Amino acid sequence: MKALVLEEKHRLSLRDFPIEETMGPLDVRVKLHTVGICGSDVHYYTHGGSGIFQVKAPMILGHEASGTVIETGSAVKTLKAGDRVCMEPGIPDPNSRASRLGLYNIDPAVRFWATPPVHGVLRPTVVHPEAFTFKLPDNVSFAAAAMVEPLAVGVHGATKAKIKPGDIGLVIGAGPIGLVTALAALGGGCARVIVADVDDTKLAIAAGLGAITTVNVRARDLTEAVMKETDGWGVDVVFECSGNEKAAAGIFDALCPGGCVVYIGASGEVIPYNLGKAMVREARVEHVFRYAHVFPRCVAMLSSGAINVDPLITRTFSFEESVEAFEIAATSPSGQVKMQIAMPE
Amino acid sequence: MKALVLEEKHRLSLRDFPIEETMGPLDVRVKLHTVGICGSDVHYYTHGGSGIFQVKAPMILGHEASGTVIETGSAVKTLKAGDRVCMEPGIPDPNSRASRLGLYNIDPAVRFWATPPVHGVLRPTVVHPEAFTFKLPDNVSFAAAAMVEPLAVGVHGATKAKIKPGDIGLVIGAGPIGLVTALAALGGGCARVIVADVDDTKLAIAAGLGAITTVNVRARDLTEAVMKETDGWGVDVVFECSGNEKAAAGIFDALCPGGCVVYIGASGEVIPYNLGKAMVREARVEHVFRYAHVFPRCVAMLSSGAINVDPLITRTFSFEESVEAFEIAATSPSGQVKMQIAMPE
Amino acid sequence: MKALVLEEKHRLSLRDFPIEETMGPLDVRVKLHTVGICGSDVHYYTHGGSGIFQVKAPMILGHEASGTVIETGSAVKTLKAGDRVCMEPGIPDPNSRASRLGLYNIDPAVRFWATPPVHGVLRPTVVHPEAFTFKLPDNVSFAAAAMVEPLAVGVHGATKAKIKPGDIGLVIGAGPIGLVTALAALGGGCARVIVADVDDTKLAIAAGLGAITTVNVRARDLTEAVMKETDGWGVDVVFECSGNEKAAAGIFDALCPGGCVVYIGASGEVIPYNLGKAMVREARVEHVFRYAHVFPRCVAMLSSGAINVDPLITRTFSFEESVEAFEIAATSPSGQVKMQIAMPE
Amino acid sequence: MKALVLEEKHRLSLRDFPIEETMGPLDVRVKLHTVGICGSDVHYYTHGGSGIFQVKAPMILGHEASGTVIETGSAVKTLKAGDRVCMEPGIPDPNSRASRLGLYNIDPAVRFWATPPVHGVLRPTVVHPEAFTFKLPDNVSFAAAAMVEPLAVGVHGATKAKIKPGDIGLVIGAGPIGLVTALAALGGGCARVIVADVDDTKLAIAAGLGAITTVNVRARDLTEAVMKETDGWGVDVVFECSGNEKAAAGIFDALCPGGCVVYIGASGEVIPYNLGKAMVREARVEHVFRYAHVFPRCVAMLSSGAINVDPLITRTFSFEESVEAFEIAATSPSGQVKMQIAMPE
Repeated sequence: MKALVLEEKHRLSLRDFPIEETMGPLDVRVKLHTVGICGSDVHYYTHGGSGIFQVKAPMILGHEASGTVIETGSAVKTLKAGDRVCMEPGIPDPNSRASRLGLYNIDPAVRFWATPPVHGVLRPTVVHPEAFTFKLPDNVSFAAAAMVEPLAVGVHGATKAKIKPGDIGLVIGAGPIGLVTALAALGGGCARVIVADVDDTKLAIAAGLGAITTVNVRARDLTEAVMKETDGWGVDVVFECSGNEKAAAGIFDALCPGGCVVYIGASGEVIPYNLGKAMVREARVEHVFRYAHVFPRCVAMLSSGAINVDPLITRTFSFEESVEAFEIAATSPSGQVKMQIAMPE
Repeated sequence: MKALVLEEKHRLSLRDFPIEETMGPLDVRVKLHTVGICGSDVHYYTHGGSGIFQVKAPMILGHEASGTVIETGSAVKTLKAGDRVCMEPGIPDPNSRASRLGLYNIDPAVRFWATPPVHGVLRPTVVHPEAFTFKLPDNVSFAAAAMVEPLAVGVHGATKAKIKPGDIGLVIGAGPIGLVTALAALGGGCARVIVADVDDTKLAIAAGLGAITTVNVRARDLTEAVMKETDGWGVDVVFECSGNEKAAAGIFDALCPGGCVVYIGASGEVIPYNLGKAMVREARVEHVFRYAHVFPRCVAMLSSGAINVDPLITRTFSFEESVEAFEIAATSPSGQVKMQIAMPE
Repeated sequence: MKALVLEEKHRLSLRDFPIEETMGPLDVRVKLHTVGICGSDVHYYTHGGSGIFQVKAPMILGHEASGTVIETGSAVKTLKAGDRVCMEPGIPDPNSRASRLGLYNIDPAVRFWATPPVHGVLRPTVVHPEAFTFKLPDNVSFAAAAMVEPLAVGVHGATKAKIKPGDIGLVIGAGPIGLVTALAALGGGCARVIVADVDDTKLAIAAGLGAITTVNVRARDLTEAVMKETDGWGVDVVFECSGNEKAAAGIFDALCPGGCVVYIGASGEVIPYNLGKAMVREARVEHVFRYAHVFPRCVAMLSSGAINVDPLITRTFSFEESVEAFEIAATSPSGQVKMQIAMPE
Repeated sequence: MKALVLEEKHRLSLRDFPIEETMGPLDVRVKLHTVGICGSDVHYYTHGGSGIFQVKAPMILGHEASGTVIETGSAVKTLKAGDRVCMEPGIPDPNSRASRLGLYNIDPAVRFWATPPVHGVLRPTVVHPEAFTFKLPDNVSFAAAAMVEPLAVGVHGATKAKIKPGDIGLVIGAGPIGLVTALAALGGGCARVIVADVDDTKLAIAAGLGAITTVNVRARDLTEAVMKETDGWGVDVVFECSGNEKAAAGIFDALCPGGCVVYIGASGEVIPYNLGKAMVREARVEHVFRYAHVFPRCVAMLSSGAINVDPLITRTFSFEESVEAFEIAATSPSGQVKMQIAMPE
């Protein structure tokens, strides 16, 4: 099958690539429709790997995907050929201790699309477990459905925060993950969200997404801005999505007594942590690693209108243009949030 | 001062009523602007009491209120004369064991407006603690602010439910409390809410409030309807707001495994409870008694647009018409959700 | 193999019974050592069924078991032949929605030993999944290990209660489940537990288990006794283990504001429920159905001495005496808590 | 009255010190019986201050105290003269926002004994609010009661951890706070606790306190030791009580997937934090600042025997010897855990 293959660092080909996939009784075969380009895909392209995951053999990219079921295994009950779906890209071992506890995303045995040596889905079809394939209502487009994967990170973070209705949130970082987190925080019960970044273009996009106040931290002191917005009490939840060390260092300054910090963006391994400030507030700190159990929730929120991701889809390429799409993505073009690739009919 | 006084069962007067109120250092004096009519006010009028609370002496009615600060105690810091505010009508003992634990609403010492022998606020002014008086942003009207009290019941229920982003909720009962609970559930993170009632007029109002599906339980089986909407899994949260014994008996049928039931409307003291069905689902059941800590959250959600209560305010009377307003309210007029009284300028 | 077979209601045989069991790669084969007699086993014997579970064909009894691994599947990693173990008797579908969420005990597909049509383990050997077979430390006896199954019910209930260190608990009912629940509540963080029953023999056994105060509700009013023990505040957690309707009706009287009730014993389908009393306390009510994730926890607590079940094992029969053992058990003999059957070497 | 006064850094006097205390209606006057010496008292003596709290005028030391009520305010209901009591040394503003939420310990307005400019209780009597004075059962000694204050730190940490029955805990640091935390973890539901330190004398004391395994991290790798004890899964909760930067850096290595870290000991303001390791485990991190709501729980646990602090009280001085006692304490004498001062009869 023809696929977008990362041959090695800096070298992509759109070429025939042989993959043999056997269908189990609990699997479905999906024809891909839309695949989003994630920062991690681009990172593999530009750096050839990330941490312990290094590209040692040609690998197909892409893990944000929607499509149509074209075949179902003998024991599949909830899906049938023709169903429009989106897919969760990580497949855990259902018998592992972590999976049994409901923590399948932190099962070390998870096989995750486009994470070496597992292939991604910038290709015509894929075989996937029914349990991680989710049917789309008619009013959720393939493009929106291919946004469920990044949105799931934000929704998982919002879930971990245990938002109480009417909380005020602060999202640090207005990149794609920061924006889906802001949407998830609002959809998940926050009355308002403050989004902080250094880039006015990104902040302008954030400002258009709902009850969002923006702060350019180059122009204003973030703690001061937050305290003004919250009558000096601080925000209930801080979502750290910037991966920026300096932002991390001051993360507790804007937090209310008893508030929660959720780390979503990773900066690097070791960060400075202001323990004294965390203690006087008795902060709760949560960490997310991908997501678990939230895909059907994301689909429901897109369908009901609780969350609208359309403003984040800023450019669409054809599959034939996919090498070019990655070259553009690698330049971090201003004003682009999410670029997607439309697979051939 | 001129007040709406319940002289005894079935007898209301709008007359001069002497009240002496002393301001403490932590109190404010508020000129009333808008006061909503609650079912409990009407119940005192038509029944002369409720449970252990019996009207034994003339009592001023009204506890859903907004107004303007006209005087502040010497130690008040967060409010000043001229501030537009709404007020939480229950005043606990801050030194009680329940209050110290943060559970001030279930402190037996709470003094609550228009609950014998405590007077309500259908009168020109009231002295109230700063701690339970909340400043309004400019974009929250006095009418909406007088809705914060009933809305708080719904928001407190939604908080107890510990909604996870994208949950599907079911609200049983489309009276005023059912409707504010549906709004709170949506504002608090539910993707969608199903509202059940027997009255099509009420359901039509519900249907206009957002991502709401309505079920007339006279026409359709509720469990069947819910299972169809949720692919056979059931809803994540059931909010019981009907006070109906029959509804209570089947309350677990529509609930998903591990789901939550929140009792908001009380039917009477003892209800039938299907323990077997609660156990096989390992249901969590929560109960609310008024509210705690949610007034500022409600104000924030009204201000941000997360919740819009305007469609629920269906009729407004002048203070001079307030006896008539209660007479009308006592007839449970079809199509009316919340009737309010505008106090004299 | 020779097994204890319930041929039909009231008729047990100790006879050869052919069972074909195939080992999967993730299974182990266990030689049984000790099997406890549970009230549900006895109920099948005396009533031929329970609710939807009716004995329609001969069925082997027994589901509280310990033994020794004698064979391991090809993919088994954590166990080897010779390991002493105890087994969780319910096997869920690891791919079901409930299992994926970590709620495998409420997966409707669970196959549970000695629940028609699934055979129990009063027989020489059984094939069981590694994931539900737990290695015993040297200092946990086979007899204690066969108590893990009933203990797990109590520990699951104590887990649901979310005990805070120093809570005061109330256990209603001093039968086997009440007693393991009292042990679990103490081991799980309660400072003290009050145990209520009508039977002084049972209460005497309870009183010997630790920091336990007993109340014979025939002699003293339970609410009064609890209020005296708790300075009028009430207990933090009530564990209902009696299945008694009258006890159920007054269950909130002894509960503190904001406290928790856990239903462990089922009385029947529908019980009277005092909603008014639940609401003024904002009670949280939890329900347990068997258990999930607690077997290794029980083993750890037995090994460390946090819980000691030995006083509950009141009589042991040889396998040859097992029919007689059931006949005795069916008389509910006074002073007996748990009777066990020692399988042949 | 005669008191132990810290005149300035390095200079203590036992001398007459005039204090005027007025009794409010909700206050009691307590004659002190036993006062423990805390590391913070010693730190004020040796350093003259700590962070923003600097001793600028003579201040009485001591905040771990028990005694006898000798006078009660007019509105006091739960205590009477002659009652044996222990006291919580921090007095919050009951009307602050944090207090109203139940978070009185993180109310910035808290006035805390022996924290400048508030005097401590190494003196004959003190006036204290009834709400923070707790009656002792007969079987709790004054010496044990004066241990409630440090024990409360451990119990508050164990409460924040949300221990599930049968959890395995790890306490890093075997100083006084580490030891009370280990006791609290065991009393609060842990099956076993591993205690790590570099000092064999301290570890020997720890080993005598219950189901505790000790690890000298100079002799063994802590992560390796933990993994061996937990079959490679890791501990459920890590309590950091060492204030050691190096320990802090590796804190997630021993933690199981989905586990919890509680910071109890503060090392300094900013510590290195391994975000990558926290994320792959989705760790929950909690922080404690003193304690709230746990004094009556500690008293109940001492009374029931769930926790025994007697082995930690290693030396007692008379009030006349109190200057000498501080001089000895300042040398961090080996083998001493808690030194106390017995006040004059």
